[in-house]
Amino acid sequence: MASEIELIERVRRQFPSARGGLRIGIGDDAAVLRPGVGRDWVVTVDAFLENVHFLRKVHPPKAVGHKALARAASDIAAMGARARFFFLTVGLPDACTRAWLDDFLDGMARAARRFGLTLAGGDTTKYPLVVASLTVVGETDRSNAILRSGARPGDLLCVSGRLGEAELGLRLLRRKLHKRKPWAGFLKKHFYPEPRLALGEWLAAHRCATSMIDTSDGLSTDLGHICKASGVGAIVWATKIPVVKIPPELRRLGLDPLDLAVNGGEDYELLFTVPKKYSGRLPRKIKGVSVTVIGEINRDKKVFLLGPDGSRTRLQPKGWDPFRKKG
Amino acid sequence: MASEIELIERVRRQFPSARGGLRIGIGDDAAVLRPGVGRDWVVTVDAFLENVHFLRKVHPPKAVGHKALARAASDIAAMGARARFFFLTVGLPDACTRAWLDDFLDGMARAARRFGLTLAGGDTTKYPLVVASLTVVGETDRSNAILRSGARPGDLLCVSGRLGEAELGLRLLRRKLHKRKPWAGFLKKHFYPEPRLALGEWLAAHRCATSMIDTSDGLSTDLGHICKASGVGAIVWATKIPVVKIPPELRRLGLDPLDLAVNGGEDYELLFTVPKKYSGRLPRKIKGVSVTVIGEINRDKKVFLLGPDGSRTRLQPKGWDPFRKKG
Repeated sequence: MASEIELIERVRRQFPSARGGLRIGIGDDAAVLRPGVGRDWVVTVDAFLENVHFLRKVHPPKAVGHKALARAASDIAAMGARARFFFLTVGLPDACTRAWLDDFLDGMARAARRFGLTLAGGDTTKYPLVVASLTVVGETDRSNAILRSGARPGDLLCVSGRLGEAELGLRLLRRKLHKRKPWAGFLKKHFYPEPRLALGEWLAAHRCATSMIDTSDGLSTDLGHICKASGVGAIVWATKIPVVKIPPELRRLGLDPLDLAVNGGEDYELLFTVPKKYSGRLPRKIKGVSVTVIGEINRDKKVFLLGPDGSRTRLQPKGWDPFRKKG
Repeated sequence: MASEIELIERVRRQFPSARGGLRIGIGDDAAVLRPGVGRDWVVTVDAFLENVHFLRKVHPPKAVGHKALARAASDIAAMGARARFFFLTVGLPDACTRAWLDDFLDGMARAARRFGLTLAGGDTTKYPLVVASLTVVGETDRSNAILRSGARPGDLLCVSGRLGEAELGLRLLRRKLHKRKPWAGFLKKHFYPEPRLALGEWLAAHRCATSMIDTSDGLSTDLGHICKASGVGAIVWATKIPVVKIPPELRRLGLDPLDLAVNGGEDYELLFTVPKKYSGRLPRKIKGVSVTVIGEINRDKKVFLLGPDGSRTRLQPKGWDPFRKKG
């Protein structure tokens, strides 16, 4: 059985050594980071727990490693910050200390390279279940982080990518249809979500977003967070939402693309507001990611969905985390 | 049953609001921290898990909250840094979301005030077991953090406080003797350890320590870490170690104070080295904590204990975490 020191060594080998800004990494009591002059630091923590956020029998260890880091990095994207360092605490059952851990670390190391993240420290323990917590540190120019609270009446509401794809992947998984090849793309968005870091940084650098959040809990919930924090309301145009394209052979499942897009979680797209004056100047694709205007911010502190038939329905927060039992 | 949002609100109410250096705290996608000019940041993460680090039936929730934070803050003390911010991820069983959580948060909030820590963010989830992970951020003058790797041959080895007290508390607990009043002091050190933050800062400010670690795993293990990181050896004078004073009425338990002091963990004292030239100038008490010279660093890369009878025995790492199953 692997000792804790051996585990730490295996983790350390998987990740590249120190880069700029990291004075002392793994191996001391704490990491020493050197912030750049005139920069703010953006820090987030995120738990990733067996049977809540993933199932060991269903989710490949590479996906667990990737997704644990991607979810936390998505919070950094949602602030418009550049991802820099991360820390991992992980409890592991004996059965997971060999091949499972290798794959978990491989998935996390590949994700870290993609996201520009350097491992700076961690803590490993034996545990009956896989329990992980990620701390991710990002950096922005001073006072340039994009908060949830800056949306103003008249701003346009925008979203990146396509909504509902991760939820469709989860539904396929639940129906045990996930091993069919033509639908692998939907599973990919559930297993290997891609935080929109480059888009977030672009928006911060161009100072055109007044508020931002990532769609981790679903559009209906996350838009509610922006409206509450900003003291505003919103109207969302149903026909404008870039909804998941359900393949014809899956129509028999009776899934509603709009419902998946509005209430499905874990797409990790960016939902943000821009002043109307920028609307003409906003590219339809930024850093390779499509950006769509889907609504408008107003004063009335409620969120409505304007249907294709002109009906207005109140949009209640219905998003959820797949394996998280809420309230 | 409490919803996640209610839980976050309860956590937020327990902790004071933003202070200097914290631009955005709880409530956005991530916290925004503003480092001081010419400062390094020191960051540590530490898991605190039910049945590994504590037992829900034995450890009062206040002690769980205190100790989870104290252990992580001790890593900041061991770098000679000032404690600034912390982040909490916690999974909680339903049974722990009411009175248990109140006491847990109360213990943690009191500890945070003592240690000078501001809560800057977190993540809460329902879980069958209490699983917590703490991230603590400290600050030092640039390049002033005290590492494990700076010990040099000829340096004197020093330790704060008294060693073996937390281990004695644990032994009493195991023998179910912990409710007897005269021994409450030993339990206090096990339940409510006190990270030596003021001492650590003093040593960093006076630039007199060449290396430092906290005695979380026990002297034999932690001194081994310093020697390995510094590429040196050490001799420890058994008669000089400030060992736990075992009360006469507990002598029947047959406990060896030297064994408790050398191999017992969780005292969270500071173990550090100073150049010999400082020996005369080092106060015996610093910031209210006693400091004792217990040995000397040498070149031979091994650690020996010099017994009262003049015998030299190899000091092997035997320290351990009470509920952690190692190797």
